[in-house]
Amino acid sequence: MPDKIAFLPPKKSVLDRRDIIVADLSDLLPKGCLVSEPRGLVPFETDAFIAYRNVPLAVALPETTAQVAAILKYCSRYDIPVVPRGAGTSLSGGAIPQSDAVVIGLSKLSRILDVDYANRTATVQAGVTNLNISEAVSADGYFYAPDPSSQLACTIGGNIGMNSGGAHCLKYGVTTNNLLGVKLVLFDGTIIDLGGKALDAPGLDLLGLVCGSEGQLGIVTEATVRLIAKPEGARPVLFGFQSSEEAGSCVAEIIGTGIIPVAIEFMDKPAIEICEAFAHAGYPMDVEALLIVEVEGSEAEMDAMLASIIAIAGRHGVSTIRESQSANEAALIWKGRKSAFGATGRIADYICMDGTVPLSQLSYVLRKTGEIVARHGLRVANVFHAGDGNMHPLILYNINDPEDAARAEEAGNEILKLCVDAGGCLTGEHGVGIEKRDLMLHQFAQVDLDQQMTVRAAFDPHWIMNPSKVFPLEGRPAA
Amino acid sequence: MPDKIAFLPPKKSVLDRRDIIVADLSDLLPKGCLVSEPRGLVPFETDAFIAYRNVPLAVALPETTAQVAAILKYCSRYDIPVVPRGAGTSLSGGAIPQSDAVVIGLSKLSRILDVDYANRTATVQAGVTNLNISEAVSADGYFYAPDPSSQLACTIGGNIGMNSGGAHCLKYGVTTNNLLGVKLVLFDGTIIDLGGKALDAPGLDLLGLVCGSEGQLGIVTEATVRLIAKPEGARPVLFGFQSSEEAGSCVAEIIGTGIIPVAIEFMDKPAIEICEAFAHAGYPMDVEALLIVEVEGSEAEMDAMLASIIAIAGRHGVSTIRESQSANEAALIWKGRKSAFGATGRIADYICMDGTVPLSQLSYVLRKTGEIVARHGLRVANVFHAGDGNMHPLILYNINDPEDAARAEEAGNEILKLCVDAGGCLTGEHGVGIEKRDLMLHQFAQVDLDQQMTVRAAFDPHWIMNPSKVFPLEGRPAA
Repeated sequence: MPDKIAFLPPKKSVLDRRDIIVADLSDLLPKGCLVSEPRGLVPFETDAFIAYRNVPLAVALPETTAQVAAILKYCSRYDIPVVPRGAGTSLSGGAIPQSDAVVIGLSKLSRILDVDYANRTATVQAGVTNLNISEAVSADGYFYAPDPSSQLACTIGGNIGMNSGGAHCLKYGVTTNNLLGVKLVLFDGTIIDLGGKALDAPGLDLLGLVCGSEGQLGIVTEATVRLIAKPEGARPVLFGFQSSEEAGSCVAEIIGTGIIPVAIEFMDKPAIEICEAFAHAGYPMDVEALLIVEVEGSEAEMDAMLASIIAIAGRHGVSTIRESQSANEAALIWKGRKSAFGATGRIADYICMDGTVPLSQLSYVLRKTGEIVARHGLRVANVFHAGDGNMHPLILYNINDPEDAARAEEAGNEILKLCVDAGGCLTGEHGVGIEKRDLMLHQFAQVDLDQQMTVRAAFDPHWIMNPSKVFPLEGRPAA
Repeated sequence: MPDKIAFLPPKKSVLDRRDIIVADLSDLLPKGCLVSEPRGLVPFETDAFIAYRNVPLAVALPETTAQVAAILKYCSRYDIPVVPRGAGTSLSGGAIPQSDAVVIGLSKLSRILDVDYANRTATVQAGVTNLNISEAVSADGYFYAPDPSSQLACTIGGNIGMNSGGAHCLKYGVTTNNLLGVKLVLFDGTIIDLGGKALDAPGLDLLGLVCGSEGQLGIVTEATVRLIAKPEGARPVLFGFQSSEEAGSCVAEIIGTGIIPVAIEFMDKPAIEICEAFAHAGYPMDVEALLIVEVEGSEAEMDAMLASIIAIAGRHGVSTIRESQSANEAALIWKGRKSAFGATGRIADYICMDGTVPLSQLSYVLRKTGEIVARHGLRVANVFHAGDGNMHPLILYNINDPEDAARAEEAGNEILKLCVDAGGCLTGEHGVGIEKRDLMLHQFAQVDLDQQMTVRAAFDPHWIMNPSKVFPLEGRPAA
């Protein structure tokens, strides 16, 4: 991959002034909040995409919104690129810096500011981790719904940047459906507030626009999110099938009928084997595809919903049905699923695709995905949010073999194009980042991208905010 | 009200060229699709807000997206204001024209283009009525969820412009939560496609931005919306209370507990009397406030949810509980509620507020609303979507008495400011339009409005799209 142009050429005017910039930024921040020594910069060279790495110019770790504003005001005045960073768990390279950029890490903004059960909201700083929100309200019977597999580490600021999802988003929606307000620092240091605790807001929905904008419209420093009351009970059930096509058509019928379980996760045989070997979750090994369907509510509600789902599964040739019999068993089932990426990483390098397709196309796209990967001489494991049509083929390859890596990238591109051509899109929850930037022209007509970029420029006229990401480097407006 | 500046001053350059503009537009449209005779223009002078009226320059009734594009291209070239119009049911004056404007009516774009049950979507032209979508899929067991009281007449294009809601949005969300894609004609005639049938989309969420943009970012000609499977059963239940405060705190506890019925509608004593006299819905007359709580699902699910709700209501002094015993009774209960505005119109003129407040503030805002209206010597009826905190005080007055009208407007303004000050916002589902435009500065800091207007200008640099609406006339950027 390194022969591809991944980043905008670094600005000589910025690189040449490095020492001055570092000194100026130091003055804007408390002691110990600016990293500029080579050794200190290493952890910020890449993120969970790992395909590229750059040493940034410096890393600012502000402690307040005012400090974020001061840094942005300074960087915009001197035309210095800025890359916001949460926990660096991006799977699309959204937080990988360019060498002339100041990384603004939000990790020190880690306080929960307000929990308001009467309005079912929590207001937190951007660096609070996803799981911390749920943990803070768990004893009182609430949780924050979107649950990326990286929820132990990833921050709410990063979740907003990527409009992150997770297994339980089928019922509760992704980040944008659970976000009520943000404090946003614009490129020039202006601080604005979007949304709030009440339903909707008049005027233009800038809040929705900011969610998923990958750090290009400003830097979120605080967020108000919706809290959900924990259900009375929850029960994951395993449904095994002798083919991926049957499992896929079963999902389509469940959703088509209008039943909305909390989650419908899909694993094919390779994924089952990888996860079971790691987590000993008790997955059936005599099936080609597995669905984890979770229902919730009272015992009566769960029984009623499960009866409908079991009837549908029967029409699609289900060969194994196993209900979890205890909280322990339920936790194990989820542990297996949520460790899929880590467990895969133990046996091979992989790139994780994030294409989304209409449910009616699920079986077709699964079959074609297998054909594409096989044609490139590689292996694939599929483990994904089937109820949302949000596919995650993991293409297994050897990162130290350049030809293998090139084949994996090419297979990935073909799979994403397949998703788009099937009426879907490039990304469900991981964002565009560096990874899918050049495929945006397959998703959109230039006229559609132009309008997006015009709106982007309304927030960041000189393109200093995370500028190498999301939009193809060619066909941009002259800045 | 007429002494207030409601509209931008008409452009002399446009008024002077009226005959040429009419002739040019005629050439762009099929025969019979341009209205320019005084008598023909009368129905387009105002909308359901009725506080203002203007004869527009002309009314174009295009039959295709290409014709919409041709008109916009022409109007933008000659700097002619454009006001899009669905069915003219706006309660905030969103479709009231200015005298130098070409109204673009979408009523002839009335075809349902595609119904796709496998993906639970329908694609319709902008002029299709809200109810028509549900009727088209009803026999197959589906419906379109947002249900404004005007759903018999209002169009999906207007719903998108105002991000409309309705009684059943508590569970299913408002328009933006049920909208998957649009075809949008930009100010210069460029046609772009936003969203589609798949979850999410990469890049900036322009779809969410367009929803609720009140015809200022472009004209939607087609929309793809989510279909919902009809529940097994639904049951509205009446809960009567001896005070509005008790009813309000009951709602807050239901939602705070995490229970999400399909609908929680609130009516105070005046509203109950007005609706009962009109619809004979069987509402209890010995209560001060009434909640209509609708639950849905299987019999077991409804019983379980109702048991929880009844227990909560008991803690808030409920004095009457009445479950509907038949489909007929259920329909009558909803008929009473949905005819509230019409029934009120039989006994008095009224203006309908649309403020939204955090649920914890419901009781407080109800009490203060009563005080404000009484201080102005007027009466109020409250009937609204309580579960969403979306209040609709109907201020009763005499439109032919200018002093009464001025008092009503002043009371309305005070109520909306009260909502904002309580942590809420100016509008839940009716939009800003003309009505709440000048209150936007109470909701937003100038810096917040500036950012909204910068984004608006990224779509419509010369402010020709519905320009007198949404943003205060002062403090706009020089166009």
